[in-house]
Amino acid sequence: MSKGKVCLAYSGGLDTSVILAWLLEEGYEVIAFLANIGQEEDFEAAEKKALAIGATKFVVVDVRKEFVEQVCFPAIQTNAIYENVYLLGTSLARPVIAQAQIKVAEENGCFAVSHGCTGKGNDQVRFELSFYALKPDVVVIAPWRDPKFFNRFAGRNDLLEYSASKNIPVAQTKAKPWSTDENLAHISFEAGILENPDTTPPKDMWKLTVDPTDAPDVPEQFSVVFEKGLPVKLVLDGGKKVVTEPVELFLEANALARRNGVGRIDIVENRFIGIKSRGCYETPGLTILRTAHVDIEGLTLDREVRALRDQFVTSSYSKILYNGMYFTPEGEYIRSMIAPSQKTVNGTVRAAAYKGSVTILGRSSETEKLYDETESSMDELTGFSPEDTSGFIAVQAIRIKKYGEAAREKGETLSL
Amino acid sequence: MSKGKVCLAYSGGLDTSVILAWLLEEGYEVIAFLANIGQEEDFEAAEKKALAIGATKFVVVDVRKEFVEQVCFPAIQTNAIYENVYLLGTSLARPVIAQAQIKVAEENGCFAVSHGCTGKGNDQVRFELSFYALKPDVVVIAPWRDPKFFNRFAGRNDLLEYSASKNIPVAQTKAKPWSTDENLAHISFEAGILENPDTTPPKDMWKLTVDPTDAPDVPEQFSVVFEKGLPVKLVLDGGKKVVTEPVELFLEANALARRNGVGRIDIVENRFIGIKSRGCYETPGLTILRTAHVDIEGLTLDREVRALRDQFVTSSYSKILYNGMYFTPEGEYIRSMIAPSQKTVNGTVRAAAYKGSVTILGRSSETEKLYDETESSMDELTGFSPEDTSGFIAVQAIRIKKYGEAAREKGETLSL
Amino acid sequence: MSKGKVCLAYSGGLDTSVILAWLLEEGYEVIAFLANIGQEEDFEAAEKKALAIGATKFVVVDVRKEFVEQVCFPAIQTNAIYENVYLLGTSLARPVIAQAQIKVAEENGCFAVSHGCTGKGNDQVRFELSFYALKPDVVVIAPWRDPKFFNRFAGRNDLLEYSASKNIPVAQTKAKPWSTDENLAHISFEAGILENPDTTPPKDMWKLTVDPTDAPDVPEQFSVVFEKGLPVKLVLDGGKKVVTEPVELFLEANALARRNGVGRIDIVENRFIGIKSRGCYETPGLTILRTAHVDIEGLTLDREVRALRDQFVTSSYSKILYNGMYFTPEGEYIRSMIAPSQKTVNGTVRAAAYKGSVTILGRSSETEKLYDETESSMDELTGFSPEDTSGFIAVQAIRIKKYGEAAREKGETLSL
Amino acid sequence: MSKGKVCLAYSGGLDTSVILAWLLEEGYEVIAFLANIGQEEDFEAAEKKALAIGATKFVVVDVRKEFVEQVCFPAIQTNAIYENVYLLGTSLARPVIAQAQIKVAEENGCFAVSHGCTGKGNDQVRFELSFYALKPDVVVIAPWRDPKFFNRFAGRNDLLEYSASKNIPVAQTKAKPWSTDENLAHISFEAGILENPDTTPPKDMWKLTVDPTDAPDVPEQFSVVFEKGLPVKLVLDGGKKVVTEPVELFLEANALARRNGVGRIDIVENRFIGIKSRGCYETPGLTILRTAHVDIEGLTLDREVRALRDQFVTSSYSKILYNGMYFTPEGEYIRSMIAPSQKTVNGTVRAAAYKGSVTILGRSSETEKLYDETESSMDELTGFSPEDTSGFIAVQAIRIKKYGEAAREKGETLSL
Repeated sequence: MSKGKVCLAYSGGLDTSVILAWLLEEGYEVIAFLANIGQEEDFEAAEKKALAIGATKFVVVDVRKEFVEQVCFPAIQTNAIYENVYLLGTSLARPVIAQAQIKVAEENGCFAVSHGCTGKGNDQVRFELSFYALKPDVVVIAPWRDPKFFNRFAGRNDLLEYSASKNIPVAQTKAKPWSTDENLAHISFEAGILENPDTTPPKDMWKLTVDPTDAPDVPEQFSVVFEKGLPVKLVLDGGKKVVTEPVELFLEANALARRNGVGRIDIVENRFIGIKSRGCYETPGLTILRTAHVDIEGLTLDREVRALRDQFVTSSYSKILYNGMYFTPEGEYIRSMIAPSQKTVNGTVRAAAYKGSVTILGRSSETEKLYDETESSMDELTGFSPEDTSGFIAVQAIRIKKYGEAAREKGETLSL
Repeated sequence: MSKGKVCLAYSGGLDTSVILAWLLEEGYEVIAFLANIGQEEDFEAAEKKALAIGATKFVVVDVRKEFVEQVCFPAIQTNAIYENVYLLGTSLARPVIAQAQIKVAEENGCFAVSHGCTGKGNDQVRFELSFYALKPDVVVIAPWRDPKFFNRFAGRNDLLEYSASKNIPVAQTKAKPWSTDENLAHISFEAGILENPDTTPPKDMWKLTVDPTDAPDVPEQFSVVFEKGLPVKLVLDGGKKVVTEPVELFLEANALARRNGVGRIDIVENRFIGIKSRGCYETPGLTILRTAHVDIEGLTLDREVRALRDQFVTSSYSKILYNGMYFTPEGEYIRSMIAPSQKTVNGTVRAAAYKGSVTILGRSSETEKLYDETESSMDELTGFSPEDTSGFIAVQAIRIKKYGEAAREKGETLSL
Repeated sequence: MSKGKVCLAYSGGLDTSVILAWLLEEGYEVIAFLANIGQEEDFEAAEKKALAIGATKFVVVDVRKEFVEQVCFPAIQTNAIYENVYLLGTSLARPVIAQAQIKVAEENGCFAVSHGCTGKGNDQVRFELSFYALKPDVVVIAPWRDPKFFNRFAGRNDLLEYSASKNIPVAQTKAKPWSTDENLAHISFEAGILENPDTTPPKDMWKLTVDPTDAPDVPEQFSVVFEKGLPVKLVLDGGKKVVTEPVELFLEANALARRNGVGRIDIVENRFIGIKSRGCYETPGLTILRTAHVDIEGLTLDREVRALRDQFVTSSYSKILYNGMYFTPEGEYIRSMIAPSQKTVNGTVRAAAYKGSVTILGRSSETEKLYDETESSMDELTGFSPEDTSGFIAVQAIRIKKYGEAAREKGETLSL
Repeated sequence: MSKGKVCLAYSGGLDTSVILAWLLEEGYEVIAFLANIGQEEDFEAAEKKALAIGATKFVVVDVRKEFVEQVCFPAIQTNAIYENVYLLGTSLARPVIAQAQIKVAEENGCFAVSHGCTGKGNDQVRFELSFYALKPDVVVIAPWRDPKFFNRFAGRNDLLEYSASKNIPVAQTKAKPWSTDENLAHISFEAGILENPDTTPPKDMWKLTVDPTDAPDVPEQFSVVFEKGLPVKLVLDGGKKVVTEPVELFLEANALARRNGVGRIDIVENRFIGIKSRGCYETPGLTILRTAHVDIEGLTLDREVRALRDQFVTSSYSKILYNGMYFTPEGEYIRSMIAPSQKTVNGTVRAAAYKGSVTILGRSSETEKLYDETESSMDELTGFSPEDTSGFIAVQAIRIKKYGEAAREKGETLSL
């Protein structure tokens, strides 16, 4: 008699295969779930394996479109970035996968969901907080935090032996000395040899981008058209290739960045649980689109709106995403602030990718007139009286003169 | 009978030469002042010319050391950046020059200071607010905002004719189709053909860096050692070249970046006076040192201190610098927050410069132990119970479950 | 031949009467405009006087309803407050009046608008920035900043003499030794004897509230019902009096506060132009409604939404209002953040007003369930495992133990 | 054979008496610790009881002076406040008590500390995070989170029965229907009948202040002198009573507030662990001193320093205190920002307390000249040209006119 149905996030790899078998052993019925979020994966092999181990059912859900449109694009609109460097590639995927998994769980009458995340990482938090928001009564089974499980499977050998005992086929490829997580927007590399933060990642680790030294010797020009802050057109090959459908555009941006070695990151970051952790990431297309977006905002976004958005929305939303707080009141609140900030972000950025970097070549907007060539010209007086600036400075100086006078009176000298 | 002594910031160029002559014509005695802040300049020629035109005295002040140590280095410590892109190269120089000019003015009994800044830019504001703080009773003569002056000299031809009439020698080199401002840390290019924000800067405009396509084909490795957030050692050539003296280190970082094409920026930014303006900048060494500093903070700075510093100090200080508010109560206040944030920022960053980009290769710290390889390892349980994370998540989930429940009760569906 | 039509904000007082006459003398045709924003005013007398002096037309616009609904209510929703104390009573009125004045100007073919604000205050800025946003090509005539005017009318006597010469009737009541500005929400007192910040305002200065010592000896209970953060019902007299229409509700809140001496403020504040200024204010109803709103948010608003709103929206919007930036991109942007923050702010606050203070007696919400009596009870374990908190604390402690260890290692002692 | 020495925070009440006995039963040796932080307490009775139950030693530490000087005064300097209302009275005490307890633990060779906090509150977090920072290797025994304990003592009856069985004397006074926590600065009331947020606290609950309706019928005037933001002198009785010693001053402020009914708060707040909770607080003296401090900052603090301090330091520090993060890197960092903000906060505030409220009567400063009566006067032109403001407005308007023009061009109408 089953203890009930569990929907397990199943990748086909060693860990989740062992978890699947163990859940069955524990008396649960298991629905294996696998999100297609653009990772390189043999979905058929995973299905075959899951069913062979004993899953009642194997469900793949293609979430690529909503991943790009609902999550990656708003991230571009906010210039989301964590600790100055990380473009949040993994964080962005988690709420999308969690939502699909909960849907599968509900459709299949599962009372619980399970995952193979370790007990020290961010992903367990991101998944579970999303689960709880979407289905507050769900039970979460996290084997790597359950002493019954983690004490039994203390090392890789225990997993391998258990697999053998259960006739679970194990890939014969040698395990890489790091872990990865991949989706349409990015791949992460961490753990293993990367745990020494002074170890330079080996050249053959990187997967989604060519090594900058191997990239073409000629900069590749392209342009991105934005409407309300969303990339709506990517133009390549001097206009010969034009893509507009969101997923296609995103994939094309990935390919462009990949061949030019753009989007690699190496960082020691602060995990939500308070541990520092070293991660290497490739985020090809997102890097290019974000860079272009930052630039077009220069031309089209009001200074004060930008300042408020930068200080408030960008930093808050990045932290919310990183900490797995997508489905929260504050996540919803901050997302409501994105569209109103992007009303005027309309225009075209021309840029070039070259051996690891992206360079802006120019930008224009047909509809937005905040930039005024004549007005900004130092040589022109049109519509602007230089004497006004004297008044502006004089008023700014009121407070500052007082500061200088107070210092003088107290015998202090202001200096650098 | 003189109307009094004026200390004029004199560059030797057409504008300030005309201003010098005009001030004399207006009845002032003029002390010509020129700061050596690392720009490429023929100081002797400038002196000769100033005296020839009629300046009472010509004073050069070498401010390079204080520029690097008092202003550029704290900017690195705060990761200062304006509107995501601009490293504030011009802004950083202004308070240094202003302080030197006021000192010269006071030593020479000048009641007024004068400059050749236009009436639409940031620099007039930056200079004058510094003047007023340092010497609240100073009089500022800003000819380009004085109708008597700007109506008389409406175009370049008027300046040239006036120069001829006054026997002021004019350089026969053709004027560049843009303006520049240069110092030890950076050069700016703006105005002229750059006023069209969609015009790609010509290759021969750039001055402080080689074109990335012309840079060496092999990445150049280097390392930077930080103490309390300050770069104290730059190691090049596989250890063969080591520099530690601040100015020397800065110059060496410049040279490293220059030969690898690192530090170019092209931006449409928001000036303090509310106009958008297009600027192209080269900030070679600062780009490299800032990148390394951001990285070492990942290893050595507490998460929450970093978050507070990023959201509060970095953004506020960048705006303060950009708007010329260096010598203000808030400038002083924010600067008091730099050192306390950098106590633990001690360590070494290894990186490589290559054709326009800087890549981090690894980092280490002998003294700071915030990063703990064993602890962050996904495979280790040392000093950390995975069950603790269950409690952590459960507590985080209290508020979030309520959010999900409220949505369910109101018949709403949470979704991406 | 007229130099064109000017729409003058006309109060009927000495200053604007002189301005009206002066504008006519200068050759303009004048449309006199007076907003009814709830101030105590003899509108008929003003009309008679304006026409007698020579205005072509006199237009009163009743803006009370939009003042309350469009501006005061959102201010309550954001708990707007400037420098911890000032409830922005004057600031709130300015965009409402400016919008009405521009409408009158446009309907009457005026190329210019004019006002009687002095050159050192906030109101000139608030009015004019609103004018320029609503009608960018409008000309603003600000006599108190025009040397032609202010040099001629250097003191009150000059105004009186000019009035006499123009047969402008002047009220025989002795001028008060301070200035006031009044509207439905508040009255301000400043200048005159109040300029000494250590002078206690005389008891008979206050106008909209009774002196707390003269207020009833028994606390007066009332309750306010909020929907989406808006006050939708005010209940008085133990339920005998219930008001729901916004303006009526606001007026009733004013009356309630008035008779209980609630809403007086005395502050030295920082004006936008950088001068410090002393102001005394009465904001009766707004004080009561804001206090109740702050309280109901405690019961119904998510912690993180509240924290984000407090740190960014409240402070930014208060500054935007104070500085007259209502009709700006950032004003529009921040206002878009109000409604999304108030979705759950539904409930009832019971309170009492008594001799100058407002005391909360209790609060409840039928629809919002964020507060859970059982759960928050220290005696109950329902739905909550105390061991979870151990995990929560353990994870929070990871980072903090490191801090303690680092201090110990470096021989430092952490202490208060 | 003992399992080692535990330092227990012992109050003499039922809970910690049972915990003491239980710890002994579990095989620990117990050092009973009691901080004198100004609460009403029978220290001798507690000592007698602790020793009778079996404590090895009873140690009282008087922390009143450091509580006032090291923690309460900096809270005044930052105007610390949580969720607009709560003055953090309990939060302020926790790090002081924790520091004393760790000192006692170390001096007595204890490997562990223990406390009687429940598993749902803030105080467990505040104590334990402080313990871990001050002594990272300390073991914390939290019986109310230990199933062995809380399952055994499920209700008050279990505690009473156990007390009887151990011959622990129990006070015969009937338990109040709420819990309290008291110190020199404040008392809190929560739980019990207060858990219904709509229940008005009974009049006899309040302890540290008289009911406003019972307070004197005449406002009581007083003045507070601040130096660098610290209250250094409190003047009462028209100058007849002057106190300057910090603790004495604080106690006198308490007495002043108490007799005038000042300092009561009733709030639903958000606990760190994500639960909402209703609390009633009395914070008499702190309310008065904070109100005066806010006022003197108006006169003496630069606008921009104040704005930065308000938006970042006040809100961050309040949250840090509330969440028990005093001894953390961010706590240390934020505290380093207090003194630099208070350099100019020197002056005297005159005020009156009356039936629950505090009213400012005036303020002055002999040393600070930021406020300039002449300058702020609307009637004076000294040192200020009204035309400057025209320039100031014109420059501010550049951006805003563009906003209006863009709206017009797009056929939109800006409106309230």
